[in-house]
Amino acid sequence: MLDTVSWELPDGTSVREYSDNLVGQSGKLRIIDQTRLPSTLTYLELDELDAIIDAIKRLAVRGAPAIGCAAALGLAAVCRRFPADTPNDAFISQMRTTADRLATARPTAVNLTWALNRCVKTILKVSPSSTKTLRDILLEEALNILAEDIQLCRTIGQHGAELITPGMGILTHCNAGALATGDYGTALAPLYVAHEHGVKFTVFSDETRPLLQGARLTAWELARAGIEVLSICDNMAAQVMKEGRVQLVLVGADRIAANGDAANKIGTYGLAVLASFHRIPCYIAAPYSTFDFSLDNGSAIPIEQRDANEIRRCGNIQTVPDQAAVYNPAFDVTPADLISGFITNKGIIRQPYQQNLKSMVNHV
Amino acid sequence: MLDTVSWELPDGTSVREYSDNLVGQSGKLRIIDQTRLPSTLTYLELDELDAIIDAIKRLAVRGAPAIGCAAALGLAAVCRRFPADTPNDAFISQMRTTADRLATARPTAVNLTWALNRCVKTILKVSPSSTKTLRDILLEEALNILAEDIQLCRTIGQHGAELITPGMGILTHCNAGALATGDYGTALAPLYVAHEHGVKFTVFSDETRPLLQGARLTAWELARAGIEVLSICDNMAAQVMKEGRVQLVLVGADRIAANGDAANKIGTYGLAVLASFHRIPCYIAAPYSTFDFSLDNGSAIPIEQRDANEIRRCGNIQTVPDQAAVYNPAFDVTPADLISGFITNKGIIRQPYQQNLKSMVNHV
Repeated sequence: MLDTVSWELPDGTSVREYSDNLVGQSGKLRIIDQTRLPSTLTYLELDELDAIIDAIKRLAVRGAPAIGCAAALGLAAVCRRFPADTPNDAFISQMRTTADRLATARPTAVNLTWALNRCVKTILKVSPSSTKTLRDILLEEALNILAEDIQLCRTIGQHGAELITPGMGILTHCNAGALATGDYGTALAPLYVAHEHGVKFTVFSDETRPLLQGARLTAWELARAGIEVLSICDNMAAQVMKEGRVQLVLVGADRIAANGDAANKIGTYGLAVLASFHRIPCYIAAPYSTFDFSLDNGSAIPIEQRDANEIRRCGNIQTVPDQAAVYNPAFDVTPADLISGFITNKGIIRQPYQQNLKSMVNHV
Repeated sequence: MLDTVSWELPDGTSVREYSDNLVGQSGKLRIIDQTRLPSTLTYLELDELDAIIDAIKRLAVRGAPAIGCAAALGLAAVCRRFPADTPNDAFISQMRTTADRLATARPTAVNLTWALNRCVKTILKVSPSSTKTLRDILLEEALNILAEDIQLCRTIGQHGAELITPGMGILTHCNAGALATGDYGTALAPLYVAHEHGVKFTVFSDETRPLLQGARLTAWELARAGIEVLSICDNMAAQVMKEGRVQLVLVGADRIAANGDAANKIGTYGLAVLASFHRIPCYIAAPYSTFDFSLDNGSAIPIEQRDANEIRRCGNIQTVPDQAAVYNPAFDVTPADLISGFITNKGIIRQPYQQNLKSMVNHV
């Protein structure tokens, strides 16, 4: 896969189970600089705290699972640079400071703090008599986080691949792919698995205004993997459905309530309505961690309003005049009754969601 | 209004009934250079054939009615420059050459050839004993075309204004406004008339990818007129409908079949589906000339595919990678059963369309 977030051991052994071409310099976090896509594929190798924070802040790495992996590996990379004879107490103290600073890079990204807390807790639990050095344990835990994310992507992909049949047209929105995770992605994972099985299909990738993740990232990663992809503007989705070219809508989610209402990138709700009108199944792919059973339904999910300039300008051109206002919600909530099923690491979950989602999480 | 296309007589009298600030140099076609909007409002004053062709080609003036008016006034402006002692035969011959060249500027624009043919025919019918000069007759006919377009916009606006109630949210797509016509536009005409009557309402303007006519042009002209407008990305329309902020969808059309199926800018069909789902009325505004009774239904309307680069790039940035394909239909067809009514210069026409549209055109 893409090595969106990866690592290479000092002896040159790849630690990423499914990696194909890890060539990074030893001992550093390696990420794709997504801000340069789709024009240029550049890898950044980072082990300085400020550079890692900057990379997360400016969206060189984005997507909640990928941010979590990058933060954990970034923490390990920075702490590897502490002198080898650093006493354990000093190591722990400097590690905590580093983790606290990393956590500020994107305060709302749940996976960021979750991954950092997990790494810190692991070190705090280490017996002082341990023969392993703390920095190796820290790296091991960060690599566990990456490996688990890879595994989640793979199982989602395997379950979802059942839905992909030869000749199918699949419409997706935004980027819930390899660039957003440690591996295959969530919504795109079933496509990668089906592609590996030799199934031929066509993907329609909504460009996803205003930040164009679908055009810049999804079309790029699918084309690179040899999957047939057509980039369309968001307002063309209804037309390709009407033409009979779409048999499945497949998207990710940012948060899913106990009743199955799902928050995802703005435009998802409209797609679900259009899919329902055209009698096209609409599935959401997400790991167990995206389900938030503390929320009864989607009405409690806040809709973040983002900066007007994301819409007002594109590249070097002004698209909306200064005199006009801009409305820029980042997410919408799709009601559960428009969702045909959830593709999770525990299998595909269908109605009634209230009952079936809970029993899934109880088996995690 | 905007003076999208206008003219000033040599004595300084405005010939545009509703113009407020005609300041153009005498004897020239005057148009807004729409390629520079929304950043800069610039007027072009043109009486050279090549410059007029170029302005139409590069979309400095666009929108079928506006192109028709600009072509007719452009023909008059070029022919005014023929020497005053030009014999009638030579005048007619040079006028025909000029009209033929103007007609090539945008070969698919019906109003362009329609307006030029009408001007040429008028000159050919002139009695040789006429006391008026041919060039004055030519200008008179071009001004008639402009005046008729202004009148069509006004009557559409008056009929449609009945639908606009205080506090309403109205969603529109692309630009069927003052910048697309000689005056108030078609879809935007009811808004201008209601605004003149002091009715307060809010317009949601889809940005309309890929060419952003909604953001660049509709948001600009409405804001300039003092109408409250919010620019949104196309994929946000469903969300503002769900929030209960839209009570009316109002768009234009490029061609309407005998049964009411309507071709318009890509994205219109999806909006009509979303409006139907949210039980929001969806109206199409168009003059009698947009109805094509030679087509039984919309299936015969060809969907123009446009250049991939319109989607692949935005300003100075590449948005879709070279490796991915692009699908770029310029129009879609909305089936008649999703349309609540047609706002025409003959009044608002409702179902059954097969019967009511025909009787409208019989009274033209």
